[in-house]
Amino acid sequence: MNQKKATIHDIASELGVTASTVSRALSGNPRISQNTRRAVLKTAKALNYEPNQIASALRSGKTQLIGMLVPIINRSFFSSIIRGVEDVANKLDYRVIVSQSDEKQENEAATLKAFLNARVDGVIASIGKQTRDFDHYQEILDSGLPLVLFDRTTSDLQTGQVVIDDYEGAYKATVHLIEQGCRRIAHFTARRKIDIYKKRCLGYLDALRDHNIPIDKKLIFAGDLQLSDGRRHTAELINKQLPFDAVFAASDYAVMGAMQVLKEKKISIPDQVALVGFLNEPFTSFTDPPLSTINQFPMEMGKAAARIFFDSLESERGISEQKIVIEPELIVRASSEKRKTNS
Amino acid sequence: MNQKKATIHDIASELGVTASTVSRALSGNPRISQNTRRAVLKTAKALNYEPNQIASALRSGKTQLIGMLVPIINRSFFSSIIRGVEDVANKLDYRVIVSQSDEKQENEAATLKAFLNARVDGVIASIGKQTRDFDHYQEILDSGLPLVLFDRTTSDLQTGQVVIDDYEGAYKATVHLIEQGCRRIAHFTARRKIDIYKKRCLGYLDALRDHNIPIDKKLIFAGDLQLSDGRRHTAELINKQLPFDAVFAASDYAVMGAMQVLKEKKISIPDQVALVGFLNEPFTSFTDPPLSTINQFPMEMGKAAARIFFDSLESERGISEQKIVIEPELIVRASSEKRKTNS
Repeated sequence: MNQKKATIHDIASELGVTASTVSRALSGNPRISQNTRRAVLKTAKALNYEPNQIASALRSGKTQLIGMLVPIINRSFFSSIIRGVEDVANKLDYRVIVSQSDEKQENEAATLKAFLNARVDGVIASIGKQTRDFDHYQEILDSGLPLVLFDRTTSDLQTGQVVIDDYEGAYKATVHLIEQGCRRIAHFTARRKIDIYKKRCLGYLDALRDHNIPIDKKLIFAGDLQLSDGRRHTAELINKQLPFDAVFAASDYAVMGAMQVLKEKKISIPDQVALVGFLNEPFTSFTDPPLSTINQFPMEMGKAAARIFFDSLESERGISEQKIVIEPELIVRASSEKRKTNS
Repeated sequence: MNQKKATIHDIASELGVTASTVSRALSGNPRISQNTRRAVLKTAKALNYEPNQIASALRSGKTQLIGMLVPIINRSFFSSIIRGVEDVANKLDYRVIVSQSDEKQENEAATLKAFLNARVDGVIASIGKQTRDFDHYQEILDSGLPLVLFDRTTSDLQTGQVVIDDYEGAYKATVHLIEQGCRRIAHFTARRKIDIYKKRCLGYLDALRDHNIPIDKKLIFAGDLQLSDGRRHTAELINKQLPFDAVFAASDYAVMGAMQVLKEKKISIPDQVALVGFLNEPFTSFTDPPLSTINQFPMEMGKAAARIFFDSLESERGISEQKIVIEPELIVRASSEKRKTNS
């Protein structure tokens, strides 16, 4: 109880640097070199220095909080992105607080106000499906705070963005099915005209064209990409006796619906119908057969978003408008890998 | 631009109530009747009243933010609880911000400080597996803020709690397997002595005892309850030629591991070995055969936690120490339902 508390001045004199360097090192300012930061942290620990976070926040004007706004927390894709952001942020002593919009603009607006209210140092967000204008996001930028958008972005906002190449993912998936010998590939897409689904559909169409496979619009189904949609589309294919030898769905849930109906009808997967989904939801490796899908590297996406965020935060040139595009990867599992017969 | 902004006084005089009633109705104070609240909201809308949230927060001392601390966001169980809390909170114009501890005490402490820093109105939390003392939680209570614990709780803190009856869930699962004719029921539990897993193990043991089935300790395996643990335990059962006709695992992931190994060894499910998991992870309905499991009603758990939270917030008697126990439900699917042969 008698022990005097160490201050940043004690650390500074111990190391022969200025108190302001110590303060910056402790607050994770990237302008401080890794070596200096390490030395400061080591000395701080040795001296039993305990930062008064609230005082330091008031002094620096920073709360070391990042507000993250996601459409739905309960999707492996989004929670992996959260994890990626935390991975970078926590090392810099930043905490990430998350709120879900449930795809609704009114919730986004309320959350962004709440974030300002909580004095976050900036926002990392993915736009809800039902959002129609971006004034509430513009307010963040107008407050001088960094805003980084990921996955569901808009060119209406001049700010940093991280997206995946949806077109490329869909193109790879379709080419893979063609290489397995499939020629009548059905595609399940979204009814709503959302950018990512339009791009996935384009990738599918271009892959067919590039391989001189005729496009049959009767094989393209638009719905909500849920399990029930996948079931309905597949039942329709079967009932209308439309020949098809593969399904590429823009969502894992929709392709799961296809798998259920095919199994019920004793149609063999992948021999009669091969299946590829999109997103690499955890359940895809537990199905029988396991589902081929597209990995979007959400952890990497989160880390990239965090890096743009800290660039913006520390830059004297203002908000970073950097745009990072992540290349997706095709994961081939048993649902689409046909046994080779003539090799 | 010329239009004068409506104030709560305008709403009050329109309705013939006091400004303080309007303010309370707008802030979701439960002491205001639903009818009054509805009338106030309707009039506020008609008059184009736009609350200045920051000003109102400073006035009332409330930010209308609930800080939620969960071990892992990316579990259907926890994200459904978040959804349940939001369901109650959003109706009262409260926003929920979430942070994950990754089971670590240091992260919990940092997040709780950040929540205080962000001036949340209180905290709803589930304790991490690696947490050893509760001083950081006590600080929340010492600040006079409501704290509600759910699922992973402790009797060391005098505060509101919502738990499920883990014992009862395990008991129901085991009795169900006995009723299917199983007598050699293996149990996969946690190595770490965490309350919920101890209770699940007790429920299993008591169900056997109550049905005069001898307990064979060689059938009880302690690990980390991940998929790989389930695989390992099942391989051990088979390799050691220990007869078993069922597996009840305290986690869906572990029972999924059992399913994989049994299928690889061509052991039929449920006829030779019946399977029941715990938690009702979404993938359990997608496996082949679908997995029987225990539903913990996480949405209900979240709603109950939020209700205790608002009770505490509005109570003049201080923090609510109410404890709610939720009854789990057995979901029987094909992995454990044997065809009846003599009925």
